[in-house]
Amino acid sequence: MNTRQVSAALTLFCLLLATPAWAFDILQALPKEPITPADNPVTSEKAELGKQLFFDPRLSADNTLSCNSCHNLAAGGDDDGAATRLSGKKLHRSAPTVFNAAYMSRLNWDTRAASLEEQVKDHLLDPQVMAMGVAENVVQKIASVPGYRQQFKKVFGESAVNWDNISKAIATFERTLTTPNSPFDQFIQGKDNAISAAAKRGLNLFTEIGCLSCHFGVNFAGPAPGPALNMGDGFYELFPNFVGTRYDEKYDLIADLGRYALTLDNGHKRMWRVPQLRNIALTAPYFHNGSVNSLVEAVKIMGITQLKADLSDQEIAEIVAFLESLTGQFPTITLPRLPETLGVTLVK
Amino acid sequence: MNTRQVSAALTLFCLLLATPAWAFDILQALPKEPITPADNPVTSEKAELGKQLFFDPRLSADNTLSCNSCHNLAAGGDDDGAATRLSGKKLHRSAPTVFNAAYMSRLNWDTRAASLEEQVKDHLLDPQVMAMGVAENVVQKIASVPGYRQQFKKVFGESAVNWDNISKAIATFERTLTTPNSPFDQFIQGKDNAISAAAKRGLNLFTEIGCLSCHFGVNFAGPAPGPALNMGDGFYELFPNFVGTRYDEKYDLIADLGRYALTLDNGHKRMWRVPQLRNIALTAPYFHNGSVNSLVEAVKIMGITQLKADLSDQEIAEIVAFLESLTGQFPTITLPRLPETLGVTLVK
Repeated sequence: MNTRQVSAALTLFCLLLATPAWAFDILQALPKEPITPADNPVTSEKAELGKQLFFDPRLSADNTLSCNSCHNLAAGGDDDGAATRLSGKKLHRSAPTVFNAAYMSRLNWDTRAASLEEQVKDHLLDPQVMAMGVAENVVQKIASVPGYRQQFKKVFGESAVNWDNISKAIATFERTLTTPNSPFDQFIQGKDNAISAAAKRGLNLFTEIGCLSCHFGVNFAGPAPGPALNMGDGFYELFPNFVGTRYDEKYDLIADLGRYALTLDNGHKRMWRVPQLRNIALTAPYFHNGSVNSLVEAVKIMGITQLKADLSDQEIAEIVAFLESLTGQFPTITLPRLPETLGVTLVK
Repeated sequence: MNTRQVSAALTLFCLLLATPAWAFDILQALPKEPITPADNPVTSEKAELGKQLFFDPRLSADNTLSCNSCHNLAAGGDDDGAATRLSGKKLHRSAPTVFNAAYMSRLNWDTRAASLEEQVKDHLLDPQVMAMGVAENVVQKIASVPGYRQQFKKVFGESAVNWDNISKAIATFERTLTTPNSPFDQFIQGKDNAISAAAKRGLNLFTEIGCLSCHFGVNFAGPAPGPALNMGDGFYELFPNFVGTRYDEKYDLIADLGRYALTLDNGHKRMWRVPQLRNIALTAPYFHNGSVNSLVEAVKIMGITQLKADLSDQEIAEIVAFLESLTGQFPTITLPRLPETLGVTLVK
């Protein structure tokens, strides 16, 4: 089976079996640690170096954007919808949250990155994002800062500042950006009063109407990376599943053809990485183009465009109550001190 | 005497008396606490609220810029020269550091703000900076966030979210952004080996050739605010003092007429707020237009344009060694968690 067939089979399977009892077998609390690539183990020094790079605007061509500019760690790890205007650029896709991204199998709305390491490299060179041109520009810029050279040598040994190690350091920091212990997590681990009665009804509804067919797994975003994962091109789904609703035009949902724009494969038209739902109440606006500001409206749209389910206001409110229970505990992050070259700036 | 006359008299006075022995009487370590307005005492809760606002991009019209975007607390508290391109805008003046700004008498390159509170208001509305239009827009935006409403009420009582209180909270956070205990501070407090022999020669030279005539006081930026301060329009000086050098054109130093652009008073042509020198090694590029990338070059230019002193490479290196000794100890800053409205963004 190809990926789309796997996906379709999963959908059918989940819809057939979607009952609350079943759901409790498949629902998962956030694991203590994300899976880490064998060649990039997490160390505290590497994570600290990665944090500096994450907050360093010198990683963008015009020195105005750091990773944190669009993945704001003081907020939901996203851009609050502002990325479309950052640095005067018009981005056509919304910046998803970096929190718990370590639990995603593939990354980017079109699933083009197979790992956080790949995603970092992709964004550094993407003309719409950090726009650094070629890898060598990034390496030279970072290597020109004595404080970075020293740290890379300490963390990576003689290989020091190179393209792979830059992405490894940032990815390592990102693997520390997890938000465990949400009310939902506490609930499925046995603390019955951790979520409200409305949220419980919302969880049942979420399961019964079939949301779980795509939004399953640790992040409610399909399978998480792991030794058993072999998803080929990754996990993606149709959105809108049913075209022709009033939302297509209202929110400009079908102009961007998603993965098709990358592959030009007709089977990939309107196929999108299933976004995670953890901390979804903090990551408005919604959908690939960030066109929908309200979570209530987003749930209503999803019911109609994906499942032909015209949910009542009360049903939507209950599902939203469940989704709000997915807000986890954010890590305390000390602002790094960026290494600087005394008496000069790299910016000029 | 008007301010300019005061300034000229001070210059003469300082030049006449400029000797190392005299310098040690006037040189000051950073005081433990900055002077605080009677109506805005520092409290930890107010500073925490101000920190959230400082890091919140919702304070800008297009939701892309926070105070921290141009006054990067992970670096020198400045913009590394990038502000001219932030948010796609072309700013004509460089963003000075916010660290130790609490020890400046007036603020902004043209001295238009009499306090941090005024400066905050100015920047929030400045079309070239946060561009929020009118005060009411800021108040409404902040007041629409439940977590802000609660905190303002806790900190300010019933008056809660209003224009004055927003500026007071941010100014209070800024008063915590001090960098004490630089090698220079340790040195003048008696620790003789805190700075190098070259830095000591540089300090003597800095005093002898007359740099102290403008760069005196706690921040080497003229008088600090205090009960005895009555500077009227504030402390500013001519730059370039001597026009006609090769630098005028090379670094476009005389196109911007400084305070004159604000007052249209001919006596204010090329008059500028004397910038502070603390952490100067971390705040390249230099001068009001950020046109000079290197501290070495900046010192050379200052010698020629201000004092007709054509310093040798060694003299410049010694002054730079002294200036590098002004880098203080930066506070540890925990990234705030910004209050959010669940399931919606203010950005749309």
